[in-house]
Formats: sequence, structure tokens, C-alpha cells
Amino acid sequence: MTDVRIRGAYATVRGPGIEDEVAVEEPLEIRVGGAPIAVTMRTPGEDEELALGFLHGEGLIDGPREAGPPPDLAGNTIEVAGPLLREPGSRSFYATSSCGVCGKGALEEVAVHAPPVADGPRVARDLLAALPDRLRQPTFQRTGGLHATGLFSAAGEPLLVREDVGRHNAMDKVIGRALLDGLLPLNDLILCVSGRLSFELVQKAAVAGAPILVGVGAPSSLAVTLADDRNMTLAGFARGGRVNVYTGAQRVA
Amino acid sequence: MTDVRIRGAYATVRGPGIEDEVAVEEPLEIRVGGAPIAVTMRTPGEDEELALGFLHGEGLIDGPREAGPPPDLAGNTIEVAGPLLREPGSRSFYATSSCGVCGKGALEEVAVHAPPVADGPRVARDLLAALPDRLRQPTFQRTGGLHATGLFSAAGEPLLVREDVGRHNAMDKVIGRALLDGLLPLNDLILCVSGRLSFELVQKAAVAGAPILVGVGAPSSLAVTLADDRNMTLAGFARGGRVNVYTGAQRVA
Repeated sequence: MTDVRIRGAYATVRGPGIEDEVAVEEPLEIRVGGAPIAVTMRTPGEDEELALGFLHGEGLIDGPREAGPPPDLAGNTIEVAGPLLREPGSRSFYATSSCGVCGKGALEEVAVHAPPVADGPRVARDLLAALPDRLRQPTFQRTGGLHATGLFSAAGEPLLVREDVGRHNAMDKVIGRALLDGLLPLNDLILCVSGRLSFELVQKAAVAGAPILVGVGAPSSLAVTLADDRNMTLAGFARGGRVNVYTGAQRVA
Repeated sequence: MTDVRIRGAYATVRGPGIEDEVAVEEPLEIRVGGAPIAVTMRTPGEDEELALGFLHGEGLIDGPREAGPPPDLAGNTIEVAGPLLREPGSRSFYATSSCGVCGKGALEEVAVHAPPVADGPRVARDLLAALPDRLRQPTFQRTGGLHATGLFSAAGEPLLVREDVGRHNAMDKVIGRALLDGLLPLNDLILCVSGRLSFELVQKAAVAGAPILVGVGAPSSLAVTLADDRNMTLAGFARGGRVNVYTGAQRVA
């Protein structure tokens, strides 16, 4: 038997031959007007930000909302004030009428909710390459088990950093906070993630109006296509002083 | 403008200052009896296996089913023969009646679908630590952008390896194939993943009856708790000849 004790964002694990600290993962239910919208597995902390950032990325809200734990439920639920901009069930599953489910349908769905991206800042390639080192990750240091997303000024100053077992959650927490702080759209700012660049992460950044998204890992094909379609700068493999700029190279000096 | 050309599981990217190969990511819609059940962003290939493995991990099927692209839809859709074991919408969102949404509810939900795990093999610690090196990843070599899951014999022989931009998809593809090949429950076999060990990955392995799951990365708290609850062996940080055994240490010599 292995004993797991939760101590905030990390947990201590003790069993035969093992004594370690791991990142906490727990379900969070997001409710709007009393109705459950989604469940995500996340690291507890900044749950309101996560809920708002998630709803924003899905095009379901476009401004700050009151959010908090409902009084009648014990933890792991966030209630957000309604109404939503549209029915959550009306999502078209990335299908286009002409060709069925495809990447093109996914691009079109994002385009509906994403504002035109601003010209944005022009930044040095060296600065982009160095941003991941500035993602301070206190719980990652302990556990090795967390992703991080950071919001940076054009000069590379960290404005917000959030950690989570889910990379999409870390991004949602940053965007939710930015929404509450009136920072959206992120016209002059840079988003940086500690991992790979999936379609989903580019989607969330695009809907938040981010001109530049940089990551430590590889982009996927649809991440590159979406960033190009939305006129964003997408940079990957930012490590060891190097970075690959896949789209929007005009913003990189 | 950046040009992205899909060439199977990888795509070539060409733009100002960039020429690279990236992993393909495209939506896949899983339908049962004509009704859409889920959309996942995946790397194309072994789509039938992915669909079957996904449905199995959710407790929606418990044996092989006919699956394939429907004749009237162009690509990126897999139709699986119904009926399902239960309504997909009946999922209780990890809630228990006593305490609302919580990790305990998530554990109970998995327990409903997961068979008791077999005593399973007893393996050397060195063998566990070495398994990730045996995950042959042809497309990862090209793109650096894919996760892998492998199914191994107790002697460490690779039986199946699948790659995907989503780590859950790579696991679904392996389990879907194992389902078709009559290998479930995975009583005497070992699952190995190239990344972190989330609750979701342990869930899929548990429902497939896997006695041992090993990963290159860190486990989460709920991954450890679920593995312990299901009597599975969960090992993480398998790299450089070392491995941490979090649960089920009786299977590790």
C-alpha cells in the first residue's frame, strides 16, 4: 500500500522503497448557471481563472464573469455566472458542411471566436529562445510533473506564470487571469509554454488575441496551420539559445 | 505564409527562414450507430484501433467491434458498430453522491469498468528502467513531436508500439489493437509510455487489466492513488538505468 498525502499543489508519496513528491491531479467540474459544462483533471489552485480561461478559449464567454465554488458543493466545482454566448452543445465537432470532419473545419471554428491578431511587438530571436528559462516553476522543481504557461511583456518580463499537470489548464489559468485583469486581447504580449505546441494551445492563444506563442517543444501540423491562418507568430524548440520560427517571422528580428 | 504539406504521419513545413518536419495532428470523430461520441485530435493512422481503444477505456465496449470509415463521409471519421454497454452521457463526471466532484469519485468510476488486475509477472527493476529505450519511434525521430505507448512481454520484448501527438491516443491505439488481437486483459504484459503518467493513462491501463505501467516521466497524485487502488504496479522516471516504483512493488525484483 502506498500512502499519498496532498499538500496543496504537490503530494507526498510513501510506500515500500519509495518516498517522493508528485504533482496533485484532481477533477474540477465547471458549471454555468447550475449546469455542468466540462470536467478537467487539473492541479488545484487558481480554479476560477482556469474556469474562465477555459470558457474563453471555447468562445463561450468574452469578458470577466463572477466565478467561485458553489456553497452547496464541497470543493472541486466552480460555478460561473451565465449566460453563455452560445449553447456549449452547439459545437460542430470540427466538421465543415462540404467535407465532413477535417482540419479545415477546426480552423474555421476557431476563426469565429478569434479576433484579428494585432501587428504586435517585434522581438529579438534571442529573447524568444530565452523565455522558457524565465518560466519559474516552484512545484515543478519539487515534482518534475507540471507544465507551465507564462505571459511576458515584449521586453521579456514575466507578468504571469501558472503551472498544472495539464498543459491546456496552465494556459487556461493564464488567460483567465488576463481576462480578469483586463489584459485581453493580448496585443503586445507574448505567451510561452513549457511543452509541445498542439492545435488546442494555439487555439486558446488565438482566441486571446496573442500575437506570439513560443514553446519548448515541437509544434504539430495543425498548430502551424492555425497560427499561419490567424497571422500569429509560432515558435518551437526554444532551448539552448536556439528557436525555430514556424509562422509570422515578420515579428522576429 | 508558411506551407504545410501532409505526408502521412508527418508533414513538411516551409516558410521564411524555416524548413522542418512536424507531426501531423487532425481531428478524428468517433461515431457509434451514426451518433457522434467524441472528437479527438490525433495523428492519422490506426484510426480503428484508436476508436476501439478509446471506447474500451471509457467502459463503453468490452470486446472487439467492427469499425471503419463510413462510406458517406470523407476521412477523419470512424464508425463503430453499436450498441454500447451504456449511454455515453450517463458518465457521472467523477462525482460521488456523498461529497460532490472528487478524486474518490473518479476512482470509483474506473473501478466499475476495471477487472481485478492479475498477479502478473515479476520483473527485474533494470528491465523496467530499460523499456522506454525500446519504444521505437520512427516518426518521433523525424519530428520530435510524438508520444509513444508500447506493449511488452514480461521478458521485455516489444509486441506493439504506437505513436501519436496525444499520449492518450497512443495508449488507445495499443489497447484497441490488443482488443482486436484477443490480448485483453493484459494479464502477463507490461505497458510503457514515453511521457508523464496521468490519471487518464492509468485509467486506460487499468480497464485493460494491465498489471504493470511504466513511464519516462512523473506520475500525478491521482495516478498513484488509482494504481494503488487497482493493485497495479506504477513506475515513473524510467531513464538512465533508474526507475521509481510508486505502487505494486511486489512485482519488481
